[in-house]
Amino acid sequence: MYGAVIHAPGDVRYEERDDPTIVEPTDAVVRTVAACVCGSDLWRYRGVAPVVKPTPIGHEYCGIVESIGTAVTSVKVGDFVVGGFLHSDGTCAACRKGAHANCLHGGGYAGCQAEKIRVPNADGTLVATPEMPADDLIPSILTLSDVMCTGWHAAVSAGVGPDTTVAVVGDGAVGLCAVLAAVQLGAPVVIAMSRHEARQKLAATFGATHIVAERDEAGIAAVQALTDGIGADCVLECVGTEEARWQALGCVRVGGTVGLVGLPHGDFPTDQLFWRNVGIKGGPAHVRAYLPELLELVLSRTINPGLVFDLELPLSEIGEAYAAMDERRAIKTLVRP
Amino acid sequence: MYGAVIHAPGDVRYEERDDPTIVEPTDAVVRTVAACVCGSDLWRYRGVAPVVKPTPIGHEYCGIVESIGTAVTSVKVGDFVVGGFLHSDGTCAACRKGAHANCLHGGGYAGCQAEKIRVPNADGTLVATPEMPADDLIPSILTLSDVMCTGWHAAVSAGVGPDTTVAVVGDGAVGLCAVLAAVQLGAPVVIAMSRHEARQKLAATFGATHIVAERDEAGIAAVQALTDGIGADCVLECVGTEEARWQALGCVRVGGTVGLVGLPHGDFPTDQLFWRNVGIKGGPAHVRAYLPELLELVLSRTINPGLVFDLELPLSEIGEAYAAMDERRAIKTLVRP
Repeated sequence: MYGAVIHAPGDVRYEERDDPTIVEPTDAVVRTVAACVCGSDLWRYRGVAPVVKPTPIGHEYCGIVESIGTAVTSVKVGDFVVGGFLHSDGTCAACRKGAHANCLHGGGYAGCQAEKIRVPNADGTLVATPEMPADDLIPSILTLSDVMCTGWHAAVSAGVGPDTTVAVVGDGAVGLCAVLAAVQLGAPVVIAMSRHEARQKLAATFGATHIVAERDEAGIAAVQALTDGIGADCVLECVGTEEARWQALGCVRVGGTVGLVGLPHGDFPTDQLFWRNVGIKGGPAHVRAYLPELLELVLSRTINPGLVFDLELPLSEIGEAYAAMDERRAIKTLVRP
Repeated sequence: MYGAVIHAPGDVRYEERDDPTIVEPTDAVVRTVAACVCGSDLWRYRGVAPVVKPTPIGHEYCGIVESIGTAVTSVKVGDFVVGGFLHSDGTCAACRKGAHANCLHGGGYAGCQAEKIRVPNADGTLVATPEMPADDLIPSILTLSDVMCTGWHAAVSAGVGPDTTVAVVGDGAVGLCAVLAAVQLGAPVVIAMSRHEARQKLAATFGATHIVAERDEAGIAAVQALTDGIGADCVLECVGTEEARWQALGCVRVGGTVGLVGLPHGDFPTDQLFWRNVGIKGGPAHVRAYLPELLELVLSRTINPGLVFDLELPLSEIGEAYAAMDERRAIKTLVRP
């Protein structure tokens, strides 16, 4: 089979790889229907994270079960399935608490931008759709593998609900999904911080009640002006840079909470949080915990997070898929074998 | 009138001070029935925080309203009242969100270990009892001024509820009140970490289901053994030292939350929190937000947090009140004029 392999910064190749096989009885092999490029994949593409050797890449996928190990009971060959960017056993003490991203026996994949994927812990990872989904639903289902669940996790971690005002820092795919999550969770005020017109429009489509284009102190002042002068109850930090985190801290009210899903780059000033009674919570999203509910919202066409994909390419053009995101010509690129 | 004045580390004196008066129309003057010494008062007593000049000290009190400003409407002369360690206006945007400790117009007092206290923002700060309380309820009412509400705040900030396991780091008055709070909030497992027999007994009286006497790695292992091997859902950090914070981080499960009320001494490693999906939240307690509910629990004799006082002295012996706590001869000292 063929799949993406990163060789060096800026060098992702479509090349032949060994077909994945069932290694453990709890494995499944999934024939990919769609995969995509994640903002976090760009770390290595941009040389921010090291590439020590040629490595299969990608961690978002949906597809059709091609084979299962002897211990797998919850999905069968031919099922259309989606799974999260980390696999999880679903039975350990962490999973039983809903903390699937921190499963005691979980981990990542050997590259999901590929024609086929080995999924360990299939029973604790995959969720099958009741029937083969309509093709136009594929992008939204694919977002459940990471970005939609990650935006949802930001909102859940920050305690978003029907009584909370929300500001979202970051207008990438995760930030836009966080807007959608906050709206879906009933927040009456959802402020999207973005200065890119196309992303502002998508945020509005997802239900953002306000757009703030300013950054830094002016952005904070604009959020405060929309939130009774004190800042938002919940701020969803969907970038991870130091700048974004300061933005988030400036936009949250005393006693509020910052939901963190942007991959972290350095520690927060926690003493300052303390005196302001500001909480922080977040991390890798517990995808499997959220999948059933969010899959139903997608299949019922209640939410359409697939709109974050503004470029679709054949898997064979994976190099261009990365370049388009790196150069910000695309918010997020979907690839199909 | 007479009151406590700290002159230097180890030097708290009972001396004559000017009688407080109504300065703003929103003020009340309260004749103190009981006051006490806080662990945080010991910072200056021990020379950890500076004493730049002789300063009236103390921030916990209950008493009888002696006079009120022309704008005060919620309490009247003769009422028995309790207020928090910070005053709050009750009307600003922060207070309307229940974040009274971060009131936009709040602040501290000019020394509550005194015969009389000027209480600014009386309407937004004081709560009156329906009638004069029985004398044996005074200690419990007094704890609502700080330690019981602070323990409660730790539990609320950490999300303690009927489904959560809880570990409490710190066996001072706040830690013991945090045990009581967690039990009252319905937590089925409440682990008190203490190696002092008297404090262990009080924790058990307050409803702790388990006592862990070990510290450091052994303490963490003991908590994990009681919580399915992964740690507690909620850890209440009621000390603030670096050692206590590491203990708290070690005792919390992936996906759990640490409620922080120990006054902070240096920043947390937040990147590490992120990867474990551990949240932190807390700060100065929103006393006024909790007072009505907790006062009712005290007056109905549902809870008896006053048991944290194991020494009572006349206010005139305030120096000994400090020395007893400094030398750990007392958990907490109550003083009466």
